[in-house]
Amino acid sequence: MSTRRYDDEERLKDTVRQLSNNESLCAMCHLRLGFEPLPQESMIQEMIMLCRSVLFPGFFGKEDVNSFNLEYIIGLQCEKLKGIMENQLVAGLVFGEKSENGRYSLDRLLQKAEKVAARFIYKLPELRRILHTDVEAIYLGDPAASSHEEVIYCYPAIKAIINYRIAHELLVEGIPIIPRMISELAHSETGIDIHPGASIGHHFAIDHGTGVVIGATAIIGNNVKIYQGVTLGAKSFAVDENNNPIKGIARHPIIGNNVVIYSNATILGRITIGDNAVIGGNIWVTTDVAPGERVIQAKANNILRLKSDEQ
Amino acid sequence: MSTRRYDDEERLKDTVRQLSNNESLCAMCHLRLGFEPLPQESMIQEMIMLCRSVLFPGFFGKEDVNSFNLEYIIGLQCEKLKGIMENQLVAGLVFGEKSENGRYSLDRLLQKAEKVAARFIYKLPELRRILHTDVEAIYLGDPAASSHEEVIYCYPAIKAIINYRIAHELLVEGIPIIPRMISELAHSETGIDIHPGASIGHHFAIDHGTGVVIGATAIIGNNVKIYQGVTLGAKSFAVDENNNPIKGIARHPIIGNNVVIYSNATILGRITIGDNAVIGGNIWVTTDVAPGERVIQAKANNILRLKSDEQ
Amino acid sequence: MSTRRYDDEERLKDTVRQLSNNESLCAMCHLRLGFEPLPQESMIQEMIMLCRSVLFPGFFGKEDVNSFNLEYIIGLQCEKLKGIMENQLVAGLVFGEKSENGRYSLDRLLQKAEKVAARFIYKLPELRRILHTDVEAIYLGDPAASSHEEVIYCYPAIKAIINYRIAHELLVEGIPIIPRMISELAHSETGIDIHPGASIGHHFAIDHGTGVVIGATAIIGNNVKIYQGVTLGAKSFAVDENNNPIKGIARHPIIGNNVVIYSNATILGRITIGDNAVIGGNIWVTTDVAPGERVIQAKANNILRLKSDEQ
Amino acid sequence: MSTRRYDDEERLKDTVRQLSNNESLCAMCHLRLGFEPLPQESMIQEMIMLCRSVLFPGFFGKEDVNSFNLEYIIGLQCEKLKGIMENQLVAGLVFGEKSENGRYSLDRLLQKAEKVAARFIYKLPELRRILHTDVEAIYLGDPAASSHEEVIYCYPAIKAIINYRIAHELLVEGIPIIPRMISELAHSETGIDIHPGASIGHHFAIDHGTGVVIGATAIIGNNVKIYQGVTLGAKSFAVDENNNPIKGIARHPIIGNNVVIYSNATILGRITIGDNAVIGGNIWVTTDVAPGERVIQAKANNILRLKSDEQ
Amino acid sequence: MSTRRYDDEERLKDTVRQLSNNESLCAMCHLRLGFEPLPQESMIQEMIMLCRSVLFPGFFGKEDVNSFNLEYIIGLQCEKLKGIMENQLVAGLVFGEKSENGRYSLDRLLQKAEKVAARFIYKLPELRRILHTDVEAIYLGDPAASSHEEVIYCYPAIKAIINYRIAHELLVEGIPIIPRMISELAHSETGIDIHPGASIGHHFAIDHGTGVVIGATAIIGNNVKIYQGVTLGAKSFAVDENNNPIKGIARHPIIGNNVVIYSNATILGRITIGDNAVIGGNIWVTTDVAPGERVIQAKANNILRLKSDEQ
Amino acid sequence: MSTRRYDDEERLKDTVRQLSNNESLCAMCHLRLGFEPLPQESMIQEMIMLCRSVLFPGFFGKEDVNSFNLEYIIGLQCEKLKGIMENQLVAGLVFGEKSENGRYSLDRLLQKAEKVAARFIYKLPELRRILHTDVEAIYLGDPAASSHEEVIYCYPAIKAIINYRIAHELLVEGIPIIPRMISELAHSETGIDIHPGASIGHHFAIDHGTGVVIGATAIIGNNVKIYQGVTLGAKSFAVDENNNPIKGIARHPIIGNNVVIYSNATILGRITIGDNAVIGGNIWVTTDVAPGERVIQAKANNILRLKSDEQ
Repeated sequence: MSTRRYDDEERLKDTVRQLSNNESLCAMCHLRLGFEPLPQESMIQEMIMLCRSVLFPGFFGKEDVNSFNLEYIIGLQCEKLKGIMENQLVAGLVFGEKSENGRYSLDRLLQKAEKVAARFIYKLPELRRILHTDVEAIYLGDPAASSHEEVIYCYPAIKAIINYRIAHELLVEGIPIIPRMISELAHSETGIDIHPGASIGHHFAIDHGTGVVIGATAIIGNNVKIYQGVTLGAKSFAVDENNNPIKGIARHPIIGNNVVIYSNATILGRITIGDNAVIGGNIWVTTDVAPGERVIQAKANNILRLKSDEQ
Repeated sequence: MSTRRYDDEERLKDTVRQLSNNESLCAMCHLRLGFEPLPQESMIQEMIMLCRSVLFPGFFGKEDVNSFNLEYIIGLQCEKLKGIMENQLVAGLVFGEKSENGRYSLDRLLQKAEKVAARFIYKLPELRRILHTDVEAIYLGDPAASSHEEVIYCYPAIKAIINYRIAHELLVEGIPIIPRMISELAHSETGIDIHPGASIGHHFAIDHGTGVVIGATAIIGNNVKIYQGVTLGAKSFAVDENNNPIKGIARHPIIGNNVVIYSNATILGRITIGDNAVIGGNIWVTTDVAPGERVIQAKANNILRLKSDEQ
Repeated sequence: MSTRRYDDEERLKDTVRQLSNNESLCAMCHLRLGFEPLPQESMIQEMIMLCRSVLFPGFFGKEDVNSFNLEYIIGLQCEKLKGIMENQLVAGLVFGEKSENGRYSLDRLLQKAEKVAARFIYKLPELRRILHTDVEAIYLGDPAASSHEEVIYCYPAIKAIINYRIAHELLVEGIPIIPRMISELAHSETGIDIHPGASIGHHFAIDHGTGVVIGATAIIGNNVKIYQGVTLGAKSFAVDENNNPIKGIARHPIIGNNVVIYSNATILGRITIGDNAVIGGNIWVTTDVAPGERVIQAKANNILRLKSDEQ
Repeated sequence: MSTRRYDDEERLKDTVRQLSNNESLCAMCHLRLGFEPLPQESMIQEMIMLCRSVLFPGFFGKEDVNSFNLEYIIGLQCEKLKGIMENQLVAGLVFGEKSENGRYSLDRLLQKAEKVAARFIYKLPELRRILHTDVEAIYLGDPAASSHEEVIYCYPAIKAIINYRIAHELLVEGIPIIPRMISELAHSETGIDIHPGASIGHHFAIDHGTGVVIGATAIIGNNVKIYQGVTLGAKSFAVDENNNPIKGIARHPIIGNNVVIYSNATILGRITIGDNAVIGGNIWVTTDVAPGERVIQAKANNILRLKSDEQ
Repeated sequence: MSTRRYDDEERLKDTVRQLSNNESLCAMCHLRLGFEPLPQESMIQEMIMLCRSVLFPGFFGKEDVNSFNLEYIIGLQCEKLKGIMENQLVAGLVFGEKSENGRYSLDRLLQKAEKVAARFIYKLPELRRILHTDVEAIYLGDPAASSHEEVIYCYPAIKAIINYRIAHELLVEGIPIIPRMISELAHSETGIDIHPGASIGHHFAIDHGTGVVIGATAIIGNNVKIYQGVTLGAKSFAVDENNNPIKGIARHPIIGNNVVIYSNATILGRITIGDNAVIGGNIWVTTDVAPGERVIQAKANNILRLKSDEQ
Repeated sequence: MSTRRYDDEERLKDTVRQLSNNESLCAMCHLRLGFEPLPQESMIQEMIMLCRSVLFPGFFGKEDVNSFNLEYIIGLQCEKLKGIMENQLVAGLVFGEKSENGRYSLDRLLQKAEKVAARFIYKLPELRRILHTDVEAIYLGDPAASSHEEVIYCYPAIKAIINYRIAHELLVEGIPIIPRMISELAHSETGIDIHPGASIGHHFAIDHGTGVVIGATAIIGNNVKIYQGVTLGAKSFAVDENNNPIKGIARHPIIGNNVVIYSNATILGRITIGDNAVIGGNIWVTTDVAPGERVIQAKANNILRLKSDEQ
């Protein structure tokens, strides 16, 4: 409780005016001119939480599910999910539109959003089935995992893969921006950065996961296992005349079935890692690997071992 | 405010029914058949926040502590912590139980949970003492740290180590799953992934920390310092006849006292790093290191330097 | 609803007393002796969210901005920001003070906090201008970025750079601790750890970002692009007689204009990377790099490729 | 934490089904068949709180208004008020509509709601002016009122009159139901029950107020003062052939200017109380009172006074 | 942000101790010695809101009910209602128990509570049916009521009668205290005070209602209508030797079918008002009224009418 | 999700400007020119809830008190109460001040507020003692009250009397406005309107209570019992030359010890009701009543009883 007053009220008001004028905003401010919805991180987060709760009842969400209430809860969650998703899909679809006089044909976008959201919900049972294969793969692949439940509760990969599979569905439906926001939420939560454009088979496992990067055009087969720090990236130096990366071409690796890639391996470019191959830790790979081949670090030959009395 | 109505209400209801039936849920849905509690991330997060507030009053939590209210606040926090912890410990203990006809002997589990929670709270003063040594170690080890307070407020390692020390206590008490959920919360928050099964001495310091992985059977001495990206992992290729990692054996490194491990070093397997050893950055170590030895990257011999006019 | 009672109420009360006494707290407990504010993570997070909302209206925050309400919303956000910032700046300034008899001259600190907060708000239009260059740089530099909006919504780098630029302003004003808390919030959110002491030019771009570390005395020019896992660190072995790092000296790299540093490169020490240089992925650099030079990994010469029938 | 389970889960589910079927609901359940909004007490309460805050800044609402933020706050409150009011006006308008096949022409209702809400907001300055006369009247009329501020803060009549004047405006605009909900909120809050159909002049004062009832067709002049328990009602025995009150006719009193009506007086029927008349406490009036006339209770003649030794 | 400190911290702590000691608390403090639940107004309020929402879907509660979600919502509301009701019923049942050594047999109380709560929920369809008759009665009896919906939304009597009918059910089941708390919540909300012990038939109507008091042993027939300020009370002077009212005897009126009682009438003692009787406003009745009799105020004979020039 | 836009954005902005300008606000808007606190109903409500919780632990408030936590909870509640009370006392004290140039000497007001708040808290044990006598009086005086606990939980009079006794303490300390706001909160909650200026002895009982009015200069002895609708008011016709009531003189009744006043009795003017007197229901008293006298309604002589066939 002090007796102060704004020292320079007018300057403060003037700053507010500067921050509100068009010139300052450039094209960087999203005004809701036509009252269209805008993408909103908190709503997308809630959308994801609803999906997780519906897909794995009892594991995610705050609801206490039991045999009496299970259907009631899933029913309401699906309805809520539908509403939020429609809203955010419209928000995303606006980015793919040319506005005329600052107005979009929101009705058409809304119709598309409703159809996509409905289709998405109809697919949830199938999404649950494939996610169960991912849980199974992680459980079988980690000596520290003592039960399927532990995998669902404790492995960040599950969260990252759920988000990826949701985002991928929406990207395939042609929704702009929202899929990327979904994958970034998982990136922030888990340190695992899977672009929704990637294509990933069933029984997909990641352990630890921090630092994993999977690029937009990567293709991953079934039953693949990946460790922390692995990058499936684009080759670094493909740039255009302005020294900017060339856009829109297939530029990330193709990974076959049953491949294992150990921690901090970096695989770059549109190369192919054949079925059943193994890529060792800290490896830098920019050329094809044959099916069944194992690529590992040779006996380290550039390390100095100094005794405690050496300098 | 639109006039729409669900296009296909019956199909939506049918999807809800599919998502609620047993076949779809497989073993992956946790129903509270006997009204037992389930592990819940939000409650475990609150449990951790209460521990942090009690251990470092004034640094964590939203309470404004002062000399008048300190004991009142800690009293209520301990009580709240006890209640939430008992609830979540039961939720974890259920996973170690064989249910008969879908019912657990919850009374017995509750009794155990109450005893463990009480013992945990009695140990909080000791936990605070050892955490103070970690703060001290970080303060002394980083030229950028200007005060002990800055370390507690600003170093993610402190959060990760608090969670680890709590989780380790509970793992030693035989609680399933909950310790791993605690360490994953820190992993998500800090990018530091310490398995609660690891054994870590006093004066433990981590700097930056993103990407650090410390495996379940690792043993770390006193006064050890670790930088970002360090992995203390299992050797990669120890797999069984089904090509899955072999479970339950000591498979991570033993780190002696006063060891420093620089950024992105990878130490794999049940090897021993002797007291006072130093492991340089980006090093890949799979064999023992003698006490006092310094292992560093030799002068880089696989790097090309191209002048600006070279291609 | 159970009939239990605390088994050992007295022991619980005794633990509370232990946790509240001075000896146990050492110097590690912040009591609000003079009712001064304490740094609080949740308030700093809100401060950041307000800045983001004001800087990029419609992208961050929960407000639905439109042409009618834009100035009203920014006006109230600026006022709220001012109040919270003043409070937290005082909280930080206390750490730079010598208290006499446990009392600070809070009035003086408050006056300074008010001046700094006002100056900060007056600078917001300029901050927005430079952040727009960062958005532009990321958009031009990534083939996967389809619009400026996608960059703002989906690239964690934007969040990390906003926090850095805010924290840097406050560090330059001489505020202790708070700038570091701001950068740690971004570190936790994005895995990108930029020390507020670093100096960074305009058009700064980071892609993916997990594991990036930029040290306190680093200097980065204009139009620099960095990928995930890059460390701009101090040389590892500069320690004093107690084996602790030496504090307070310029110890991180100087990066010129138009430099690109690919993923997981490690650049250590007070070296200079010249303008237009390119540092390849997974490179370990501890010596100067000339302007225009490209440093890349040579053809991997320490990798074993084992066919599927080899062991 | 108990081990119970629903004794008869099927019977519980069956009760849910009974409660959900159409027969049980009769016409008494409002389903949102066409997703139209429904009247909602909590939203109407918020609408009223926004009006009160805009009309008397600093007295109502939780905002800390000052000279810097006043316009910003009022701007946002007006926008929020507009949105909520439009929603609830549509909800009310639905009741005046014949639906065809369970669908209303919501677009037309929405257009009307938007126009009415806009007109209402344009009238707020005028509403404030007349409410100031009510404050003035109460201040001048009560020896216990020490300031205008005390009147606004402490006299329930102000809340009841604000609600009445808002509700009356909306009733005049032809909005069903919502005006009555507004007046009932004040009734619950203050015990003062003013039907929004009543017509009330400026400088209107009520003291204490509990139990005041003012009927739907009452007409009250300027500068009228009323005490607790006063009823301006319909004559009791006007019923139709089914013994139900006859609807839709003017049936409540007309009160002239400058009239005072003391506590618990009951005035019934379409009679006229002339200008400057005074009606004493506990009076039962069913016939006209001339201008300037004073009607008071005669010396009580039906009271027994028993000394303490009498029975 | 001030620099104050508690002037006399010790005296404040001492006051806290005084307020916490047994002597000061007398028997007036409810400690949860055995962790039994205590009656809690906020939980009972929520219990009532759930009942109202289930009984009149779409009118009360914040849920947007529609044909898709109706059964899901009612299912979850019934479950939530059951849980809260069981908790509060136990809290009430404790008051009817003799504790031994400060411990109740909570298990037995819980069993009873579960049975009563289940029976209550099974009766909800019947409760809804009788409440519909009350709505009908009010609609037919008030010229100002334009629809059934308006009655449910806008007539405080509906809220008071819902609460009464719920409370009466629980009182009949032998639950202490909770029924009275339920009726007091309606009393506070509406000014209508109906004791849960009263017995009230179907088609019960109250208009306006403020000040209505219906005593614990009152019996009211079917199709009765009551106006504001009506008291159905005990005769005033029946006191015992200590000048306290005599407890536990039938002491309130019996009201026949089809009776109308106008505003502010007071009916006292165990008298009988016959079927079809009418009691006029402001009447004081302490003797039986015959069936069909109309008791009204005679032409006022104790009123003075003073012309404006008289004193 | 509609495509509308504000029809007349400029007119809306203009209305906002009108509502914000000084002329429209007259003296009726409270701006926080000097950042002084303003009286705020929600804060005063919280202040009252804290008092109730401290005075009757376990009955009011949401805390689960038990023997372990009682002192901790009361300690924190007292501290919170102190802070809120100081803030609101300053807000009230401002009304008693002459400002100079729109600035108050807030420091002096704050000092006074801190002293008053401290004294108030020191008196809480005494306040609890006298409130226990009120509980006892209500319990003994009502045949329907089955326990002391029921009285505290279920009798609105307890809430009204708690608020009165708090408000009276603050009024005696010279605090403007806040005491009246406290009594109005009880008025709204219970329909009982006790002016904080009244003086009321111990063992004070009110039953039902709706419509009770006790004036600012009333004096009530010990052991007095009052029923619903009782007014202790000023004589109606004492007005000054402007026809306004004369202010500041003792104008309400003096009630002796052990007096009972039955429902709807009206007692007006500075008369004295002697010890042990009884005032019957619906009585209008404007002259002194002797000690021990019983004043009751004589056999009703102005009532018509019409048989059912009469008109």
